Amino acid sequence: MKQFHITRPDETIRTELQTKIDNLTKPKGSLGMLEKLALQIGWIQQSLNPELRKPHNIIFAADHGIVEEGVSLSPKEITWQQISNFLHGGAGINFLCRQHGFTLKIVDSGVDFDFPAGKGIIDMKVRKSTRNYLHEAAMTREEMELCLERGAQVVNECHAEGCNVISFGEMGIANTSSSSLWMSCLAGIPLDKCVGAGCGLDNEGIRHKYNVLRQALDNYRGNHSAEDIIRYFGGYEMVMAVGGMLQAAELNMIILVDGFIMTNCLLAASKLYPEVMSYAIFGHQGDESGHKLVLEALGAEPLLHLNLRLGEGTGAICAYPIVDSAVRMINEMDNFANASITKYF
Amino acid sequence: MKQFHITRPDETIRTELQTKIDNLTKPKGSLGMLEKLALQIGWIQQSLNPELRKPHNIIFAADHGIVEEGVSLSPKEITWQQISNFLHGGAGINFLCRQHGFTLKIVDSGVDFDFPAGKGIIDMKVRKSTRNYLHEAAMTREEMELCLERGAQVVNECHAEGCNVISFGEMGIANTSSSSLWMSCLAGIPLDKCVGAGCGLDNEGIRHKYNVLRQALDNYRGNHSAEDIIRYFGGYEMVMAVGGMLQAAELNMIILVDGFIMTNCLLAASKLYPEVMSYAIFGHQGDESGHKLVLEALGAEPLLHLNLRLGEGTGAICAYPIVDSAVRMINEMDNFANASITKYF
Repeated sequence: MKQFHITRPDETIRTELQTKIDNLTKPKGSLGMLEKLALQIGWIQQSLNPELRKPHNIIFAADHGIVEEGVSLSPKEITWQQISNFLHGGAGINFLCRQHGFTLKIVDSGVDFDFPAGKGIIDMKVRKSTRNYLHEAAMTREEMELCLERGAQVVNECHAEGCNVISFGEMGIANTSSSSLWMSCLAGIPLDKCVGAGCGLDNEGIRHKYNVLRQALDNYRGNHSAEDIIRYFGGYEMVMAVGGMLQAAELNMIILVDGFIMTNCLLAASKLYPEVMSYAIFGHQGDESGHKLVLEALGAEPLLHLNLRLGEGTGAICAYPIVDSAVRMINEMDNFANASITKYF
Repeated sequence: MKQFHITRPDETIRTELQTKIDNLTKPKGSLGMLEKLALQIGWIQQSLNPELRKPHNIIFAADHGIVEEGVSLSPKEITWQQISNFLHGGAGINFLCRQHGFTLKIVDSGVDFDFPAGKGIIDMKVRKSTRNYLHEAAMTREEMELCLERGAQVVNECHAEGCNVISFGEMGIANTSSSSLWMSCLAGIPLDKCVGAGCGLDNEGIRHKYNVLRQALDNYRGNHSAEDIIRYFGGYEMVMAVGGMLQAAELNMIILVDGFIMTNCLLAASKLYPEVMSYAIFGHQGDESGHKLVLEALGAEPLLHLNLRLGEGTGAICAYPIVDSAVRMINEMDNFANASITKYF
């Protein structure tokens, strides 16, 4: 399997960063989370003057065989239709990318549709939809490895363009189902706590979704390793996101983590390489019921609580200006000595 | 006393706004708080295509007689020193204003210092510091009325420049003390729940602050009306902010509410004119212990929880991009019919 080389940033610089932050013209600690973020980003970049360059949002898209079992309210055609909407600029993610200066890249990881060429979609299609994991593994081992490699490749290209801060989003009808299974297996949380409404199931729909996933889990005969769980319960777009996150960490990039699905991708990434956590900033806690629990399992402190549940990277990008504020704080605020202010704390 | 003419926006448009929001290309409700904000802003502006124009942040600054009693960790000289820092661009509020395109105005409401002319401070000084309300009213009735009028005047000037969204901040050593008293008297919350660390008191300091404020409250012999409470326990900068908020509501402007002190100013404003609440968006819940309680008393849903406790308007401005996102959402997202997407919810 593809190896990633992820190291924990050197701790030495933290003292110097903290001293710089404490001497800015404000009561110590009074900029709360901005101070924590500035410390983390300075630590990742090993710099007292960190900077954010060319933010990118990558949407990986794919279809899911499990959709045949009626686990989603939406038909799978929504996957390709919504991608067309991304390309036309009319979706949720588009106005947020425009607002905050993100370059948006759309990757076809495995959509069950033939997109016309030349429309701006990055073609990394592994297969038209995963298999139905109620009956068999969602993907083969070769397909999983291809996903990790291709996710890494997309991030390499962003990095080559000068990007050092990246968020990931997803589009794929039924992918909250895969996410719930990953979460239950990888974080050891009972399945019923991991299953939620997705894009709008009622209670009966959630019960049916739970029963299908429960049966899929009972049918599973694998070795319970993280590799096997993410392969079996699949999501081509999700495994590509895992590969992308790991490559971003290898390249010392800041990873902005979006909602329920992307948080479970980070969970999977952290089971493979725990040090990926050092590079992660959690954008928000969304409305899908399991999101709070998986964030807690990761010890994450999400920046926003706005009851979002759209995916696409929207929650991560909504949080970006706060990350930007943290970097501006440490670079632009004056210190007590320069400003001739009595240090007050 | 100066009268304000504040009306509740017409309700009729709400149905049409909600229909527009529900038909954007996303599962219904999936943009959570952005959808609520878009509804509120469209309602305030009576428009299906609301817009944010020329955001301003006004900092009112003044000193407080109660500082003599040792209720603050910081000497009162910090008030004028920090204002000099605002003017040089090195404070917390400055980088945030630059980041989010806010015009910053600094008003001397009653600082105990002679600022040199021509430095860009708006001179509305009522008096050099309020009186010490442990022994007497912080301000006279005439001074209070002057504050309301001058706060309104500053907002009129912003409005004339084309501004329709405004936040307020404050600088004034010891002003958390006034805020705690306003909160206790106006929201009926026991004083001990309203007193906190300010810019960094330890437990002993908080106990002393509480004892001083308890004594001040015991000494008070007024009629307990909102007018009398804000006059007696003062804060020239705070009463100017009340006048500014009321004028902003009269002019149908969006009011971004900052931290503990500004939330108590909005509380006071709402006791005088309850309809001011329709125009308020609460930027954040800060770290000062009473802030959560006063927000609850107002039924407010703050956008951010970032453990800020700096004031100056910083929390309101950190939240601005979310408000901006809401407006972009309703204007820029495509609807299901136009995008040829099966409506899914």
